[in-house]
Amino acid sequence: MNSRRPRITLLAGGVGGAKLAVGLASICEPGQLSIIGNVADDQAFHGLWVSPDIDTLTYTLAGRIDSSKGWGLADESNRVLDGLKRLGCDSWMYLGDQDMATHIMRTHLRQQGVRPSLIAQRIAESFGVQSNIVLPTDDRVQTRIRTPQGWLSFQEYFVREQCQPEILEIQLDGLERATVTAEALAAIREADLLVIAPSNPIVSIGPILAIPGLGQAFALSNAIKIAVSPLIGGATVKGPADRMLSACGYSCNNLGIADCYADLIDGLIIDQQDQAEADALKARGIDVMVTHTLMRDTADKARLAGELLQFAQGQLTEEKQAC
Amino acid sequence: MNSRRPRITLLAGGVGGAKLAVGLASICEPGQLSIIGNVADDQAFHGLWVSPDIDTLTYTLAGRIDSSKGWGLADESNRVLDGLKRLGCDSWMYLGDQDMATHIMRTHLRQQGVRPSLIAQRIAESFGVQSNIVLPTDDRVQTRIRTPQGWLSFQEYFVREQCQPEILEIQLDGLERATVTAEALAAIREADLLVIAPSNPIVSIGPILAIPGLGQAFALSNAIKIAVSPLIGGATVKGPADRMLSACGYSCNNLGIADCYADLIDGLIIDQQDQAEADALKARGIDVMVTHTLMRDTADKARLAGELLQFAQGQLTEEKQAC
Repeated sequence: MNSRRPRITLLAGGVGGAKLAVGLASICEPGQLSIIGNVADDQAFHGLWVSPDIDTLTYTLAGRIDSSKGWGLADESNRVLDGLKRLGCDSWMYLGDQDMATHIMRTHLRQQGVRPSLIAQRIAESFGVQSNIVLPTDDRVQTRIRTPQGWLSFQEYFVREQCQPEILEIQLDGLERATVTAEALAAIREADLLVIAPSNPIVSIGPILAIPGLGQAFALSNAIKIAVSPLIGGATVKGPADRMLSACGYSCNNLGIADCYADLIDGLIIDQQDQAEADALKARGIDVMVTHTLMRDTADKARLAGELLQFAQGQLTEEKQAC
Repeated sequence: MNSRRPRITLLAGGVGGAKLAVGLASICEPGQLSIIGNVADDQAFHGLWVSPDIDTLTYTLAGRIDSSKGWGLADESNRVLDGLKRLGCDSWMYLGDQDMATHIMRTHLRQQGVRPSLIAQRIAESFGVQSNIVLPTDDRVQTRIRTPQGWLSFQEYFVREQCQPEILEIQLDGLERATVTAEALAAIREADLLVIAPSNPIVSIGPILAIPGLGQAFALSNAIKIAVSPLIGGATVKGPADRMLSACGYSCNNLGIADCYADLIDGLIIDQQDQAEADALKARGIDVMVTHTLMRDTADKARLAGELLQFAQGQLTEEKQAC
């Protein structure tokens, strides 16, 4: 990282990803931060294309998120969903009225052939977001989860079934036809610091790194690469990452997280509760920072982001010394 | 009409058409009344297919209409439209939140290849409507209005421009590719009484009768055919029918209405204010009933519908005597 402000690119999905995005945005200049989000949770509802992870990023960065839930817009209503329910439509996927406007606009622009990346940018700009929200691909890649009741989409598993079914297998549909976006490649290649958010490694970060060309660009980048662990005391703050790690054969601890990101990260930030894992991680050649990783409020997010930057700068210093 | 309850088919568009539909429905058994609505005012907004005349019929027959406006649903909100506006989308077409559910469902089913007629039926059933709402065609036929500022869609002229531009020409786009629905043909062929509602003859009834095969079936039917004039004292209760009649070369009085429906009607119901026109109409071979045609409330609608049935029964008696 030279004397200009470092370019930071964050890979982020879910609520934890959006929280670290806010933390980094709070200490960055406009344009300094790019966030590559996850589109593998996307799904059509009532013919409208819903992109939950990207919307959570947008709404969180815009300060418009419903912070009690971590997703959806604040001050939301559900008159349309009630109407759809009265018309006999499924209503297990909560879609608020203001949020519905986003889905209607997105779907309309997609129908007109506008690239999903440009649509996400336009929505983010309309919401006043100053960081760059970048899609890993403009193609349709979708997480599918095999359970004893059969294959489910991510939203079916996560929202409709409340993460209850046993996970037998997780796949990504559409990978073979997917192409990385120029925006995502540029965000990775031009970054001085690549950060992996404390998101689900299997269904949030995995689908980003799996896009053909994207994981390779990440691996080949000379940027400092830091991940923030989504685990605290061997459990996730929110969501089914712990069960998913186990289902995919990873240990449900920070060594498992390190395995998920093998050869991709220089450093891992772990919670104080997991201090005991630091030595084993270091023995694998991963630098470790131990801190409080739980982001309960704005101050937590900014503090963790600041510590992350300091950790990255330390990495750079070490690299220079090694040269 | 034999001893069983007569089958009635109403051609209706706009607010006046929906009002007479309610009047007839109030004195009919379930299934006795079919209403052929107008789809030429349909238009896509934000990628959603909006069918204002059919929705007005459905909502009015369901008792859910916003009676202060004559269109839209009662107890409506516009959170989605506000959201779309914030996203930079046009918002001149008022689309309420509950109403939006109808458009989302309609559009989704159209995308799945469901016939528009079946969609309209399904929506009407969901709203508890017991009369048959019938589309004249499943194809796209759209009214276009030429003004000094160029061609406008009906909604652009009617809603966005508030009927202000001078009308130079009115056309129906898509007629050459349009086919009458089996449901509309059956509703006309099986009717004992065909009624033309007090709707705009040019842009509400005209586009129904213009569907290839539909006007001919109407003309060939042996049913009694009665129209209710949309004019009172040479003016319309609502909407631009008077200006449109003039723009299309018709007199803006009941003789003009009779010209619009030349060879199609046995009788015309006109308002007491226009009593003086009765003789001239009769001289053209059109039987005339003079009454109060303004429908201000439920009682007015039922009374006019009842008088219409009596008038039709009188027509039948005359026909029998003539045989």
